[in-house]
Amino acid sequence: MTTYVHGYNSHESRRLTDQAQTLADLLHAGTAYPPGSRVLEVGCGVGAQTVHLVRSSPGARITSVDVDESSLAQARARLPGHDFRHADLFDIGPFDTDGTYDHAFVCFVLEHLADPAAALARLRRLVRPGGTVTVIEGDHGSAFFHPDDPAAHRVIDCLVTLQRDAGGDGLIGRRVEPLLTAAGFRDVHTRPCTVYADSTRPGLVEGFTRNTFTAMVAGVRDEALAAGLVTETQWRQGIEALERTAAPGGTFHYAFFKGVATNP
Amino acid sequence: MTTYVHGYNSHESRRLTDQAQTLADLLHAGTAYPPGSRVLEVGCGVGAQTVHLVRSSPGARITSVDVDESSLAQARARLPGHDFRHADLFDIGPFDTDGTYDHAFVCFVLEHLADPAAALARLRRLVRPGGTVTVIEGDHGSAFFHPDDPAAHRVIDCLVTLQRDAGGDGLIGRRVEPLLTAAGFRDVHTRPCTVYADSTRPGLVEGFTRNTFTAMVAGVRDEALAAGLVTETQWRQGIEALERTAAPGGTFHYAFFKGVATNP
Repeated sequence: MTTYVHGYNSHESRRLTDQAQTLADLLHAGTAYPPGSRVLEVGCGVGAQTVHLVRSSPGARITSVDVDESSLAQARARLPGHDFRHADLFDIGPFDTDGTYDHAFVCFVLEHLADPAAALARLRRLVRPGGTVTVIEGDHGSAFFHPDDPAAHRVIDCLVTLQRDAGGDGLIGRRVEPLLTAAGFRDVHTRPCTVYADSTRPGLVEGFTRNTFTAMVAGVRDEALAAGLVTETQWRQGIEALERTAAPGGTFHYAFFKGVATNP
Repeated sequence: MTTYVHGYNSHESRRLTDQAQTLADLLHAGTAYPPGSRVLEVGCGVGAQTVHLVRSSPGARITSVDVDESSLAQARARLPGHDFRHADLFDIGPFDTDGTYDHAFVCFVLEHLADPAAALARLRRLVRPGGTVTVIEGDHGSAFFHPDDPAAHRVIDCLVTLQRDAGGDGLIGRRVEPLLTAAGFRDVHTRPCTVYADSTRPGLVEGFTRNTFTAMVAGVRDEALAAGLVTETQWRQGIEALERTAAPGGTFHYAFFKGVATNP
């Protein structure tokens, strides 16, 4: 297993919840499963996306799994009665049968895996023929902003480097379509889900630029310094540069990618 | 005046036409002026966008101006009878009266100006109170792709550098909202217009990745080499890297920005 670059502390848990609130409409639009359908959510973490899945598909039979027990404990507290299970995608346990599920959903998970292609191949086996998989991932290379500043890009690069060193890929959004196609899925539809924040959209500036993206980068400070990727001064300058994109006159662009594909 | 980085030859003219066809739906969606309204298009060039303006607003009285006579000749051949005029934004001539127009439209123009803020201030004076301005600009910093390759970024950077040396800004898309707001416009609504091409969208791969973006970068080859920005080998590697993003399994992302604002 790879290390989860964002960590598991309570501040991180709050960040994931804020992020889910701000982004829910953007990312979950069009995702609704029919009543009675069996849905597998892999890598549910603290349940930030599970809340929205349940809301959008009230009659679906959704099973949510994660490898981290403490995250699952928070998820269970958040959504009592929901079917949360402790499992790895490659060892789903008693419900490990090919074609068990009608649909699979993975959000912000493939980016942390050393072999996302194998994960998708595994997911394809768990889904019945004619079922679908939905994949949502970010791409930190989609971040550009005003005022532009190399110091800001340097701290973003720290996150990408740490994630790569941990076996993941913070630039995976652009690979969602080729990964789905290579895994043998068909009718692959991938689209960018873009967040654009400027001074005319103060809620997005606060909810995304400041509390989601900048907070996410800020969260790897200690690791970046410990790894010697930047100096303390460079780190401070980079975070300050990101904060300026949330000040009056600043703008911020980020793209997630959402792919939906069918198991033939 | 600044130099027009893309040049004025016939190959460039074809590129602009192809680009307009592929992008028309994306960029012109929502732009329709009422019958009888007076619209000023500034920097119409060869009329690539004028065609779509006229189609979307058949009853509007659209005047299109440009500083380049040879471009205007091509525009007149394309749209006989349309009101094309040879003029600079800052010297519009006999029709140079404050509040003459109900609406103004500028597309791929501010990126080439040394003082886009002054241009917007001038446009605001030409538009009556309550009238609107629509601004569409690209942002080459929004280009990211799979497979990623530093060689591709290097040739894109050549375009950005040449445009900056000519007094323009190839990264202006992210500044559309702050520029409009600073010019005194109100009700500023800016949104990214994103092109995302992958193997499941062959028309966009051909029309945008290959024939629009890569062709645009390829168009500054001689200037980039003459300026000593790259070697011939680096140039060839960069263009080949861009071409690989249009091959099977490749993906390409680009964002334009469209701002609509009111003159209070």
